[in-house]
Amino acid sequence: MNGAESLVHTLLASGVDTCFANPGTSEMHFVAALDRVPGMRCVLGLFEGVVTGAADGYARMAGKPAATLLHCGPGLANAAANLHNARRARSPMVNVVGDHATYHRAWDAPLTADVEGIARPFSDWVRSGRSAATIAADGAAAVQAARTAPGQIATLILPADTAWGEADGPAAPLPVPAPAPASPQQIEGAARLLHRDGAKVLLLLAGAALAEAGQRAASRIAAATGAGLRAQMSNARVARGQGRYPIERVPYPVDHALAALAPYTACILVGAKHPVAFFAYPGKPSSLLPEGCTVHVLARPDQDVAGALEALAEEVARGVAPPPANAGPRPTPPGGPVTCEGIARTVAALMPEGAIVVDEGVTTGRGFFAETHAAPPHDWLQLTGGSIGEGLPLALGAAIACPDRKVIGLQADGSAMYTVQALWSLARERCDATIVVFSNRKYAILRHELMAVGANPGRTALDMLDLGNPDIGWVKLAEGMGVEAAIAPDLDALADLMRAAMARRGPFLIELLVP
Amino acid sequence: MNGAESLVHTLLASGVDTCFANPGTSEMHFVAALDRVPGMRCVLGLFEGVVTGAADGYARMAGKPAATLLHCGPGLANAAANLHNARRARSPMVNVVGDHATYHRAWDAPLTADVEGIARPFSDWVRSGRSAATIAADGAAAVQAARTAPGQIATLILPADTAWGEADGPAAPLPVPAPAPASPQQIEGAARLLHRDGAKVLLLLAGAALAEAGQRAASRIAAATGAGLRAQMSNARVARGQGRYPIERVPYPVDHALAALAPYTACILVGAKHPVAFFAYPGKPSSLLPEGCTVHVLARPDQDVAGALEALAEEVARGVAPPPANAGPRPTPPGGPVTCEGIARTVAALMPEGAIVVDEGVTTGRGFFAETHAAPPHDWLQLTGGSIGEGLPLALGAAIACPDRKVIGLQADGSAMYTVQALWSLARERCDATIVVFSNRKYAILRHELMAVGANPGRTALDMLDLGNPDIGWVKLAEGMGVEAAIAPDLDALADLMRAAMARRGPFLIELLVP
Repeated sequence: MNGAESLVHTLLASGVDTCFANPGTSEMHFVAALDRVPGMRCVLGLFEGVVTGAADGYARMAGKPAATLLHCGPGLANAAANLHNARRARSPMVNVVGDHATYHRAWDAPLTADVEGIARPFSDWVRSGRSAATIAADGAAAVQAARTAPGQIATLILPADTAWGEADGPAAPLPVPAPAPASPQQIEGAARLLHRDGAKVLLLLAGAALAEAGQRAASRIAAATGAGLRAQMSNARVARGQGRYPIERVPYPVDHALAALAPYTACILVGAKHPVAFFAYPGKPSSLLPEGCTVHVLARPDQDVAGALEALAEEVARGVAPPPANAGPRPTPPGGPVTCEGIARTVAALMPEGAIVVDEGVTTGRGFFAETHAAPPHDWLQLTGGSIGEGLPLALGAAIACPDRKVIGLQADGSAMYTVQALWSLARERCDATIVVFSNRKYAILRHELMAVGANPGRTALDMLDLGNPDIGWVKLAEGMGVEAAIAPDLDALADLMRAAMARRGPFLIELLVP
Repeated sequence: MNGAESLVHTLLASGVDTCFANPGTSEMHFVAALDRVPGMRCVLGLFEGVVTGAADGYARMAGKPAATLLHCGPGLANAAANLHNARRARSPMVNVVGDHATYHRAWDAPLTADVEGIARPFSDWVRSGRSAATIAADGAAAVQAARTAPGQIATLILPADTAWGEADGPAAPLPVPAPAPASPQQIEGAARLLHRDGAKVLLLLAGAALAEAGQRAASRIAAATGAGLRAQMSNARVARGQGRYPIERVPYPVDHALAALAPYTACILVGAKHPVAFFAYPGKPSSLLPEGCTVHVLARPDQDVAGALEALAEEVARGVAPPPANAGPRPTPPGGPVTCEGIARTVAALMPEGAIVVDEGVTTGRGFFAETHAAPPHDWLQLTGGSIGEGLPLALGAAIACPDRKVIGLQADGSAMYTVQALWSLARERCDATIVVFSNRKYAILRHELMAVGANPGRTALDMLDLGNPDIGWVKLAEGMGVEAAIAPDLDALADLMRAAMARRGPFLIELLVP
């Protein structure tokens, strides 16, 4: 058994059975091992950002890490933007990065790079394999690191000679520590804030607090104490739709966010971070909380967030039943010209129960939450790290993790271009995913920002934000990668195409013309 | 004048007048400055790898740096693989990476990343701007660093507040040191080796040694001493075709390279590095030179390589005229079924004088050199860093640098997918570029490597190297991004389409079906 085979055996024994891959020459022994060791589901991506974005989507839905297979320093660099996003989602992931044989590095062949240096800014755990005899143990340690709460990016560098050299055998899985419970001080401090006279308290929710049980506990606390509930701005996964609580997010525009949070005298962080402006602007604050607002951490992301909410509910809402979660009647498709609200209502009207919505709608998508509370029960995945170009890969990974659920991608056009190669993998894997591309032919978010900066922007600046000239033909792009596609000029057409797409299996792309 | 305006003024004054850009919110003041300060040619890329690959192609042809505009740490990461390639090409480049305002970083907003840490493995010079008052001076220092021999990657991080804050004005250009001449010891050592009895000497050429004057000097030396001449394996730019010398490269396959270099007792490096295997293989050496071969450095890449060759010629070939450079008759298009040699002969037969050939042919392209010596005079650009996915961006950058020359991209299909978004920029800029995609629907290079590793590879492994299922439709992909395209099933069709493409201006893509 060579090192590569010992590593594949170890990954499988540790529960990692899916590998998103874009291999090169230095990974050929690992690729060959995938044949000899059965059990690893392999998914090829034609660009590394597809690979890591898909592993992120997979982890969010499967609740466990996938492996990625990447090629040398530059391949890891191509993968890094979606590692950034995955890390902000606190998704577990095990990256296997093939590299030159240890003795070959000193020769500085063309692909030689500082792989550890490239990995470090994007990883919670980095190790470079030293020998074929120890690479299996390194693999077990990588999975352990990835699975350690709240979920980490583990990057294992696999020099070619540690893959082809003789190994002793697989390594046993290592224990994964349970997340630490919140301390009594954390629980009691929160309870005190909630009971303080005249306090207006916000529970800011993230992570497990946005799963069904967490929402129920948070809603009991809110019902008993009058506290407000919000999700943080960007979330890895939110349980939404009928029977779940219509929890709004912290808005993206700084002024809206400041207004939304202005009433609060205290903010309790429940797996969330201190709310902060996405970008800084001259004369505007970084923190979104009003001055003097008390901040209390009920549970850090690496603690048992759901358990902390239950404990706090036991403290302040004993005997209080969860309030009914009534989001009102399900919307009907509005038809007519395209509006952001109309898109959301159409999707809410037509999505099946159990859908997985991947939202990289950017500007078009800002109002989607409000209009989709009353959809059937579904999960909602957002871009967490702000590096656009993860929507299509997330959809791929979610579809691989949950082959029996419909994936619906709500996708800005500019963002989709960064990792457009994901369409090919969706086609190859026959993923049950419907992608709606919002074709507004501009970086709309940047036009807003530019208007705020330049009194009267000219041609040079506007051209830098314009995706027209030439218009991108999404139907041709999709068909060129094997995905059936059609164009929707209005919401009637969108509804018709959505109905057809929901009634069948397999990948489908709708180019929605957004004015 | 704000910091962004002072920086744009400084770049222009330092001779940087072209900017390849993929901006985000934190760069809006820089984008607005591009309107207010006239003179910067801006080219939008829809993915950052397009941006840096184009800046590399521009630098190779313009002989000076372009600027790039990138968005935060993840945007820089997306740009990094082609920074790696550009650095291996020793191309000068000035990256301007927008980032959070200095005071906003501590809040760890979603896009916050260790930008300096990301830049370092891919840059020769890194600086983070500290204030609007000093950002112009930082810009001048960045250009100076980029232009310092042999050409460097300079990365300037531009926090948003250093862009929007009040500046004092532009900074004056800084002097660029001339490359150091080779020492008398370097010249005399080379002369001694060439005169040594029984020595069989190879001059290994790179950089300026492969421009016309360098080739002429090297050929005089070879004529006078019987030394062999070779270009290194991968080169930023080679002057080729009629009137230039038919210099072969060091082959890629290790066994071929070892055989080619086996006869030599000494190797003189002329701007080249010690020749080394692209990858290590069990039981094969890293160094491609025979054991005991003497290695002598005539000129390092950062020295005056062309001057060193002239000095050596003066020493060992005084009075010797350059031999005639006769590559034989120009090939005619062979027609018939597709072969690698036939592709090269078709291109050599039909390219116009002054063409710029961008070669990312990978497996298909290995034999191209031998068949194109007798083409009209042209420049030949290769992938230098081994990170596939630079061919289309290089073509874009070369076309922007040389709008009056025809660019011909010889492009492997798997490689093209990494930065396929470059097609859109080729269309928008109406670049005079003809791209021939070798559609063999597999990572052919990896199939060779896998066969060498696994006796009898199975489905799982082969699927990881297969670009079919679904086949990529290059005509649709190109048309979806505004580039006219057609399919060529054989060399007759290739010749017909090439003739038509050479007779017109503007971007055109030919999908050549390669068996």
